[in-house]
Amino acid sequence: MGDRIQIAHGGGGRLSAELVRDEILSRFGKGPLSDLPDAATLDFKKTTGLVMSTDSFVIQPVEFPGGNIGNLCVYGTVNDISVAGGKPLWLSLGMILEEGLEISLLRKILDSVRKSADECGIGIVTGDTKVVPRGQCDKIYINTTGIGERCKDFSLGRSRIKKGDKVIVSGNIGDHGMAVLCVRESIGIKKGPRSDLGTVQRLAVSAQRFGADVKFMRDPTRGGLAAVLNEIFSVMRYGVILEEKSIPFSRESKAVSEMLGLDLLNSPCEGRVVMICSESAADKIVRSWKKLPEGRNASVIGTVTGNSGKVILSTLGGGARIVDLPRGEMLPRIC
Amino acid sequence: MGDRIQIAHGGGGRLSAELVRDEILSRFGKGPLSDLPDAATLDFKKTTGLVMSTDSFVIQPVEFPGGNIGNLCVYGTVNDISVAGGKPLWLSLGMILEEGLEISLLRKILDSVRKSADECGIGIVTGDTKVVPRGQCDKIYINTTGIGERCKDFSLGRSRIKKGDKVIVSGNIGDHGMAVLCVRESIGIKKGPRSDLGTVQRLAVSAQRFGADVKFMRDPTRGGLAAVLNEIFSVMRYGVILEEKSIPFSRESKAVSEMLGLDLLNSPCEGRVVMICSESAADKIVRSWKKLPEGRNASVIGTVTGNSGKVILSTLGGGARIVDLPRGEMLPRIC
Repeated sequence: MGDRIQIAHGGGGRLSAELVRDEILSRFGKGPLSDLPDAATLDFKKTTGLVMSTDSFVIQPVEFPGGNIGNLCVYGTVNDISVAGGKPLWLSLGMILEEGLEISLLRKILDSVRKSADECGIGIVTGDTKVVPRGQCDKIYINTTGIGERCKDFSLGRSRIKKGDKVIVSGNIGDHGMAVLCVRESIGIKKGPRSDLGTVQRLAVSAQRFGADVKFMRDPTRGGLAAVLNEIFSVMRYGVILEEKSIPFSRESKAVSEMLGLDLLNSPCEGRVVMICSESAADKIVRSWKKLPEGRNASVIGTVTGNSGKVILSTLGGGARIVDLPRGEMLPRIC
Repeated sequence: MGDRIQIAHGGGGRLSAELVRDEILSRFGKGPLSDLPDAATLDFKKTTGLVMSTDSFVIQPVEFPGGNIGNLCVYGTVNDISVAGGKPLWLSLGMILEEGLEISLLRKILDSVRKSADECGIGIVTGDTKVVPRGQCDKIYINTTGIGERCKDFSLGRSRIKKGDKVIVSGNIGDHGMAVLCVRESIGIKKGPRSDLGTVQRLAVSAQRFGADVKFMRDPTRGGLAAVLNEIFSVMRYGVILEEKSIPFSRESKAVSEMLGLDLLNSPCEGRVVMICSESAADKIVRSWKKLPEGRNASVIGTVTGNSGKVILSTLGGGARIVDLPRGEMLPRIC
């Protein structure tokens, strides 16, 4: 751990995972947190149960091609609840504002919060606003915490994953990371990458009818697809082999990532689903996703193998490489 | 509003109230937020309902006599749910860490989170950790959002307040603010003020049996007792008259506030309840609170009057003054 917090402790890579395991799960891990770090499933009375998820957004810059921190904070928590098998109902909005923040920017952000909340059919039901002196925040940080109703159709759980299961994604991988990077580093490309930011609710709902065939869903944000797959398989007796040729990437993000020597598998998405499902349902789910605009590039990208703990990429060139969790910090403050 | 966010927008005073009214409630106020800004009461299926509350904690310094940001963030949200008539069940923990934060301090804070959560009988069920570069946060900011079960015994609502109702408090007013101020300003007093930080759950539970006689409860945090009473009565056809001689203050906080010329009625508490109840129940509730260690200084401090919108203090010297909402910022980053 070292003596002090480093930027990489927040990057979604290996140091993040260590921090969460050693300092958070060790203290609070008796609850549902141990199994589902992004959302908790909670039994409540005689209902189907609740799903709760929290996220703090510290993205820099606060505006980027495809959105701003206002719709990011709504979609982010709505998506965490959706992929945990919940129907999002209510959201809280906790803001930390920096002294000197332009009121016009705050209004623009709050308008985005409202518009995206309306789109998702959820209510912003409680909130809190704090102000800190100049230089103790970077414009605005927002926490959203959501409550959803647990959907009884799903029975998600990594323990249900089996050899031969398929890995599918709902669309292009890594666009959010590349879009933010281009603004932040002032990489001036005409028609450059655009964030995939959006709600995944409809994707989750359209998978409901496949019930128990759906074993795992997640939105690959910090650390990207690589982090999600490593998090699942690092503690399992199975592994996964991905087919590079089947993974959908946008032309724009591909170009930027190649120019900068970055791996799109580590780059965050903000409106995608990665799912593990039984082989028999994979093509059907992809077909149903393709009917939605946000799922038009959906694809089966890999297969669960007996190769314990390993995430392998079968490359376009015919080779194979291990897809590891990045140790350092590729993209700080990406969400 | 001006063009930019000022420190006073977060101070719990007049500018805070304007920000919330003009920018937050105007956009999201259709829901329960309009009536109960600190916690939302939510209907859910055939249950008695849920109570949801969120708070971001940016206190400086993170350690103070009587606690640290770790137990503050637990008690803070537990208290908001309790005074809204809920039984706190689950909490989320969203942390923003500054690069360079000492791991030893983080551990101490997380130990406090755990200890206070155990004391309150609630689970930390989901979390999120972000890291920002040095100088974009001040050590650590924490958001806690809580879900509670609505208690059917209460029927709280400011519309139920009537002339002749009594205002009662559960203990000394303003200790948290004075304790934090003394550390922050390095006012070296032996046996100085100590924060009243703690859970108010037992106080709320012991008031349950008075049911409909209890009309309003709140924990007077930012802006103190003055802010809570002004928030209630500013929009009502009633006012309130407080008896200075009946308001409990600690000797230590009284001394510091007099030395600095500050009004303890504006100074935050973190473990007190202010309640408005029917006259017939007031003494009984005070007696039941006095049986608890956290309620031993409970007192009836005022009466609801027909004096529309005004909070008046009947002073020790026999005079009377208006208790107003502070316009500026007495104590920034106090919670």
